Amino acid sequence: MLLKLVSLTTDFGLKDPYVGQLKAALLTVCPDVVIVDVTHEIEKYNVAMGGIILASTVRFFPEGSIHVGVVDPGVGGPRRPIIMETERSMFVGPDNGLLAMAAEQEGIKHVFEITEKRYMRREVSRTFHGRDVFAPVAGHLANGVNPRSVGKEVKDYTPLRIPRPTVERGLMEAQVLYVDSFGNVVTNVKKTDLEEAGLNVNDEVKIEVKSKVVKASVKEAYCEAERGKPVLLLGSQGFVEIALREGNAATLLKLSSGEKLWVKLKGRS
Amino acid sequence: MLLKLVSLTTDFGLKDPYVGQLKAALLTVCPDVVIVDVTHEIEKYNVAMGGIILASTVRFFPEGSIHVGVVDPGVGGPRRPIIMETERSMFVGPDNGLLAMAAEQEGIKHVFEITEKRYMRREVSRTFHGRDVFAPVAGHLANGVNPRSVGKEVKDYTPLRIPRPTVERGLMEAQVLYVDSFGNVVTNVKKTDLEEAGLNVNDEVKIEVKSKVVKASVKEAYCEAERGKPVLLLGSQGFVEIALREGNAATLLKLSSGEKLWVKLKGRS
Amino acid sequence: MLLKLVSLTTDFGLKDPYVGQLKAALLTVCPDVVIVDVTHEIEKYNVAMGGIILASTVRFFPEGSIHVGVVDPGVGGPRRPIIMETERSMFVGPDNGLLAMAAEQEGIKHVFEITEKRYMRREVSRTFHGRDVFAPVAGHLANGVNPRSVGKEVKDYTPLRIPRPTVERGLMEAQVLYVDSFGNVVTNVKKTDLEEAGLNVNDEVKIEVKSKVVKASVKEAYCEAERGKPVLLLGSQGFVEIALREGNAATLLKLSSGEKLWVKLKGRS
Repeated sequence: MLLKLVSLTTDFGLKDPYVGQLKAALLTVCPDVVIVDVTHEIEKYNVAMGGIILASTVRFFPEGSIHVGVVDPGVGGPRRPIIMETERSMFVGPDNGLLAMAAEQEGIKHVFEITEKRYMRREVSRTFHGRDVFAPVAGHLANGVNPRSVGKEVKDYTPLRIPRPTVERGLMEAQVLYVDSFGNVVTNVKKTDLEEAGLNVNDEVKIEVKSKVVKASVKEAYCEAERGKPVLLLGSQGFVEIALREGNAATLLKLSSGEKLWVKLKGRS
Repeated sequence: MLLKLVSLTTDFGLKDPYVGQLKAALLTVCPDVVIVDVTHEIEKYNVAMGGIILASTVRFFPEGSIHVGVVDPGVGGPRRPIIMETERSMFVGPDNGLLAMAAEQEGIKHVFEITEKRYMRREVSRTFHGRDVFAPVAGHLANGVNPRSVGKEVKDYTPLRIPRPTVERGLMEAQVLYVDSFGNVVTNVKKTDLEEAGLNVNDEVKIEVKSKVVKASVKEAYCEAERGKPVLLLGSQGFVEIALREGNAATLLKLSSGEKLWVKLKGRS
Repeated sequence: MLLKLVSLTTDFGLKDPYVGQLKAALLTVCPDVVIVDVTHEIEKYNVAMGGIILASTVRFFPEGSIHVGVVDPGVGGPRRPIIMETERSMFVGPDNGLLAMAAEQEGIKHVFEITEKRYMRREVSRTFHGRDVFAPVAGHLANGVNPRSVGKEVKDYTPLRIPRPTVERGLMEAQVLYVDSFGNVVTNVKKTDLEEAGLNVNDEVKIEVKSKVVKASVKEAYCEAERGKPVLLLGSQGFVEIALREGNAATLLKLSSGEKLWVKLKGRS
């Protein structure tokens, strides 16, 4: 059996009927599609969160899957609707960086701007391309339509732009990318930043946020954490996370997406 | 391939196992059904919200779809279980108005009261007709059973009753129908009410709620809103919504379903 | 058509991509599987809640279904991954009691410890056996693989351990097992405990919690409750629930999972 598998990653939430409408549009084009929800709880308009989560997930899908991503604050504006064809999948969504990290991981072969109206819904709203453009296009791709016939090849695409931390010896000014459902705070700090700051496993640090300062440790695994004391560790997508064993680090630190924090090596002023 | 598509719109939420039980009952009758969740986060017992959301969504489904709606505060009482057959779909659920607006939109052909026990689960509880009546009936309809054989045709049905606003020149007393996940406040005011009140695009108004008064503007599109100042605009189902650009109007105004608000044209006492 | 039906009951939530990854792993092994979500909102690590909800739900699924349960605080430790084969289903998950009540209900035929690496994902993480072990094993079982070939039969399994209340005449010290989405408080009190305490339908009682005392009645059905006054009644899985008609008993009593409460017959000191 040839599996026509389409995954969905959006910020629509599950209260409103938007996910249902998108699926209806997809099934209208491709009645035998199998749809898998990755998540619809990406924080609204948080393209970085969507892009990182998509990149952490696509490798578990079989080859030939089609991944639709819709976190699309620029819908109706000049941002292009695109298909990214990789060595093992196709990605459909806005050209705002959302699909880039996942596609780069798999090896990008071609990028197409979606232009052909015959592969969209008859009426295309200005506010909901997930339903009116991306879902029907994904359905046609699942039906075997060549991505080349859906638009024109383009030579560039928007990378996932993640703000860089400011790093010096023993000190980092970082930013929260998102908070996961366990309250783990995913930051924009990468392994190389830790090295540049001279932070090593088992180092003691202070985390400063707007209103408080908290002691923490650099650890390699979650289970090495002391109860009640936050840890910094490298998450699966290569970003440093702040976690609290059997607790909620984001609540403790009152941190949410976009906010700043400072990590200081103990002893540094 | 003939698609046996059943959509679900309920107020069950996703924490309890009710949606899973309903799907299990449906798949027991029709193993090759394709199920699409419209939403299970209709506010509990808010029939108006369910009815409006269903009406806004069914047009995206292919012809021949079967729509199950369960927002059913009267379950176990005298309200009838019904099938509404329209020009392009079938609707299954309680006769409390939930299905009416969507079915009317498509053109109602026949309404049947569900009476035949052989199309229900063997045991029918008094509290969960979604699982015990509506899901199995939808499964049989998907299998090609004629709705006529599931019950008896009836000549009436309950319309969706939405409280009417009180309108005079420059003043409306309105009510909140529901709040969507963006915090947009959907009211019971329709286009004709705006006209009767003499409110036009770009008019400045005051919105009064229990504890505060807020300035707002009448606009045609969300993107015309000034940041921080609410707008009144006509939503996709023909009801006026109060929205706040990149903000949550319901939180600002402390409004939730069923509450009253007053809209006054600027200058009117 | 032979239905390959796999149900999922987990504490993953729907914000993170874990459910999507599990489904991707399952579809990789068994492309024509039909997946039904029972719920992913089991309270994190609340094995009792997961076990009770699973037991209340599996009877609605067709014979031959495969039920995957993952509430797995001991993942990566010594707890065994198991398959429980019953008279009508198979259960796949950790051997921590989660599957036990549901499987016992159906009549257990065999229990197998999952040992064969060829039925797991190539890389098995230490933290996510849902995706790396249970989903692929369920996929192979759905494909017709004999459970006997997936591991070795074992003669014991972990029962669902639910703390017992302390009961004397007219007095019970009970514990909250979980709170459902209506705010009903499910306790560890069973029918026999009520009898031992000498509590009968229509008895008046006091419920004591940490910070308050509230009057309540023992009732047989939810609809017999007076508005504003909690009732104790026997829920569908045989546990006494505290409910508040058209209200939220858990909020009123400030109770959540694991907390203690005392039920005293009126007149008892």
